[in-house]
Amino acid sequence: MPKNCDINSYRKAIYSGTFDPITNGHLDIIKRAANIFDEVIIAVAKSELKKPMFDHDQRVAFAQAAVEGIEGVSVLGFDTLLVDLATELKVNTIIRGLRAVSDFEFELQMGYANSSINKKIETLYLMPTLQNAFVSSTIVREIIRFNGKFEHLVPEKVVKCMQL
Amino acid sequence: MPKNCDINSYRKAIYSGTFDPITNGHLDIIKRAANIFDEVIIAVAKSELKKPMFDHDQRVAFAQAAVEGIEGVSVLGFDTLLVDLATELKVNTIIRGLRAVSDFEFELQMGYANSSINKKIETLYLMPTLQNAFVSSTIVREIIRFNGKFEHLVPEKVVKCMQL
Amino acid sequence: MPKNCDINSYRKAIYSGTFDPITNGHLDIIKRAANIFDEVIIAVAKSELKKPMFDHDQRVAFAQAAVEGIEGVSVLGFDTLLVDLATELKVNTIIRGLRAVSDFEFELQMGYANSSINKKIETLYLMPTLQNAFVSSTIVREIIRFNGKFEHLVPEKVVKCMQL
Amino acid sequence: MPKNCDINSYRKAIYSGTFDPITNGHLDIIKRAANIFDEVIIAVAKSELKKPMFDHDQRVAFAQAAVEGIEGVSVLGFDTLLVDLATELKVNTIIRGLRAVSDFEFELQMGYANSSINKKIETLYLMPTLQNAFVSSTIVREIIRFNGKFEHLVPEKVVKCMQL
Amino acid sequence: MPKNCDINSYRKAIYSGTFDPITNGHLDIIKRAANIFDEVIIAVAKSELKKPMFDHDQRVAFAQAAVEGIEGVSVLGFDTLLVDLATELKVNTIIRGLRAVSDFEFELQMGYANSSINKKIETLYLMPTLQNAFVSSTIVREIIRFNGKFEHLVPEKVVKCMQL
Amino acid sequence: MPKNCDINSYRKAIYSGTFDPITNGHLDIIKRAANIFDEVIIAVAKSELKKPMFDHDQRVAFAQAAVEGIEGVSVLGFDTLLVDLATELKVNTIIRGLRAVSDFEFELQMGYANSSINKKIETLYLMPTLQNAFVSSTIVREIIRFNGKFEHLVPEKVVKCMQL
Repeated sequence: MPKNCDINSYRKAIYSGTFDPITNGHLDIIKRAANIFDEVIIAVAKSELKKPMFDHDQRVAFAQAAVEGIEGVSVLGFDTLLVDLATELKVNTIIRGLRAVSDFEFELQMGYANSSINKKIETLYLMPTLQNAFVSSTIVREIIRFNGKFEHLVPEKVVKCMQL
Repeated sequence: MPKNCDINSYRKAIYSGTFDPITNGHLDIIKRAANIFDEVIIAVAKSELKKPMFDHDQRVAFAQAAVEGIEGVSVLGFDTLLVDLATELKVNTIIRGLRAVSDFEFELQMGYANSSINKKIETLYLMPTLQNAFVSSTIVREIIRFNGKFEHLVPEKVVKCMQL
Repeated sequence: MPKNCDINSYRKAIYSGTFDPITNGHLDIIKRAANIFDEVIIAVAKSELKKPMFDHDQRVAFAQAAVEGIEGVSVLGFDTLLVDLATELKVNTIIRGLRAVSDFEFELQMGYANSSINKKIETLYLMPTLQNAFVSSTIVREIIRFNGKFEHLVPEKVVKCMQL
Repeated sequence: MPKNCDINSYRKAIYSGTFDPITNGHLDIIKRAANIFDEVIIAVAKSELKKPMFDHDQRVAFAQAAVEGIEGVSVLGFDTLLVDLATELKVNTIIRGLRAVSDFEFELQMGYANSSINKKIETLYLMPTLQNAFVSSTIVREIIRFNGKFEHLVPEKVVKCMQL
Repeated sequence: MPKNCDINSYRKAIYSGTFDPITNGHLDIIKRAANIFDEVIIAVAKSELKKPMFDHDQRVAFAQAAVEGIEGVSVLGFDTLLVDLATELKVNTIIRGLRAVSDFEFELQMGYANSSINKKIETLYLMPTLQNAFVSSTIVREIIRFNGKFEHLVPEKVVKCMQL
Repeated sequence: MPKNCDINSYRKAIYSGTFDPITNGHLDIIKRAANIFDEVIIAVAKSELKKPMFDHDQRVAFAQAAVEGIEGVSVLGFDTLLVDLATELKVNTIIRGLRAVSDFEFELQMGYANSSINKKIETLYLMPTLQNAFVSSTIVREIIRFNGKFEHLVPEKVVKCMQL
């Protein structure tokens, strides 16, 4: 019994993170999410406590460059609780990428914390392709810090953005 | 830039398992999937090698009882590779429930194996609610075997089905 | 504000398993539990489905030999749900040994399943000493099967018992 | 062979942490420990290196508010090695809460390190109830930082304490 | 201070498993081991208890086909404890492939069990390349059972061997 | 078919870390590596971002003291990417110690990142002996900070070095 295709079936999801910087691993997840959802909002957290390598404006700009031309995807910066942002934007689905066990444990914890605040919030996990399974912002920053080769780990448009 | 709501946006997903028997944990995942997808196919694997407690027909019947009245959800039995079933049914998304670390590892392995056979296949993980986080078919079978109280772990309609 | 030492403070715990056979790792946990509880009941599960190497009577006998002389420790065989045995024996505390991650996940799952059946049941985990951290019945059976040296992994009295 | 209930059977345990702030998850573990031990000492570490959100005095006061009225439970602040505190207080048992895999690994490591310093020290792990399984101080601080709803994650008396 | 290249520096390692059947993941590990050691012995365990899909002779033949032409690599079947085989062959190093967490836990346990029997035994872990990280005999057997496409997961020569 | 013992079979490996300070766990891994490789280079990372307890020169000196007299082992400090150091030193093998699950995940991630930069780089994992399995620099620093007993966790020569 398929459901009708009406206004209620319009689906939005949010994908948040510090994106310091956005990587090919993130972009991979975003593209997959864009195939499943009508609208995907990339929410770049300010995350001051983490003392990011790139400032908030840069990180938002990198994300915008990375998703340019992918239909249904937009980028915004935020500095609140993710669950409050989702409630405000009337989005019920949070997208997360799964990479490693420790990730997974923390993700589960955050997921349950979020749903304890807003029961409607659904968390949905996507798996990166194998070739992106090891890419993380932490590793990219480590390589950048020592002037190593990181260009194959980050979207091409972001590399250009960094060179400006 | 939201995409238009046209025929291409009709979305199907498959949720497969041995369902020996279907539990509240499974039903939880199914309801969530039904909120995200237009159509969710519950695919009950024959799984002869696992020597299930309930035979294939019973497990299909339990699943049908459990999802009765949930719009967009149907049940079928199968005895092939999941990835071949998905290809045959023209479904690109496989739904999995995440419960524990060992689950997660195996899921990842299966996900990569599936996408090595059919690149279009997307695997998507959902997290059960906290109260269902510990429920598994293994534990339900263990309790049934010793005539213990299992009725709170399995959908009510399945309990009735078992009593027939 | 210490509590008075009265009849209510008498504490019993149950430590169950297949014990196929009981190892130095198990004995280690039992001795620790005996330091904390007034009474520790070693409950040897029949576990027919696991097709144990040693039959139920032997496994009970090995456990009895192993704990001989440890004050407050007794052994019994059982073939019911652990939570039902605990309820019947009026024991509220289940002891488990922690060894590895996968153990831990399953333990948590069982713990929550048990407390869903009887809310009073408390599960308590003990860590073996480092030198016993790798000892498991699985490994002991593997060594026995190939006539290898297993005597350092199993209580001396059990080794004697096996030679009878 | 139950042991006699004499002075030797009086049992003390210590439950230590940064408690920044104490949560319902901690309180859950404390109540369980209080059912098993005659005396439970909540030891609030100064943990300067972690740059806590609440200062040491506040964290001690929150813990005191949280455990008020629970028989056999007391609170103290400390700024030494836990194993030295335990030795000084003549306590042989350290209580830990188990939440996630990474927790577990670190706990095991600390447990073995402690027993390498004082062999008598026993570490004992308790599992929070399912509804508290995701609550952590980290998540509570994150919510407080953004003025989110955290009151359901922390003991009521602590919430009042914070408002003074 | 490099050591001299003399007879003592001749290094042998053993890589054992059920190899039911040998996969590209195994072959990957073997090739890496062959770069580090002068001689690598592939030891195919009989593993009757696991009820393998392929019989012992077939599995040995598949392994021989797979490693044909790789210098310094030989294959043998065995049905004893690995640690006894290693002692008999005067090999001190056991090679293992690391794939997932549960693997890792079990590997560690086996490693410590082996060194409790023969202290000289060293266990050394290698990581497969990313593209082989998900390949396992279990998944290959599952695919074979349902006549799925498995040829990209197994060495070409083994595929030929199977067709004879 | 053993390979000839010629100049090409001379094998070097690198073992890097912050070594803040070097522990018996590290020394254990180093000794094992020295049995397998002709030359083992201990590379002490500057790791400024981690704000080490001991400064870079001290950490290099501790490492030198620890490995004094072990044939084929040398120590150097570095402040670049490990993979660049390895390329520069013409070393193809990176040695890592495996301790816990979280370690393992991160190790895997780093291993794949390194091989994405230099495909020739091989990462090889060793397991510490059981008695060193819990020793980590983090725990040693924690004990030192509170003037606790740490001498059994660190090589004797390093203890002497610290007292100068």
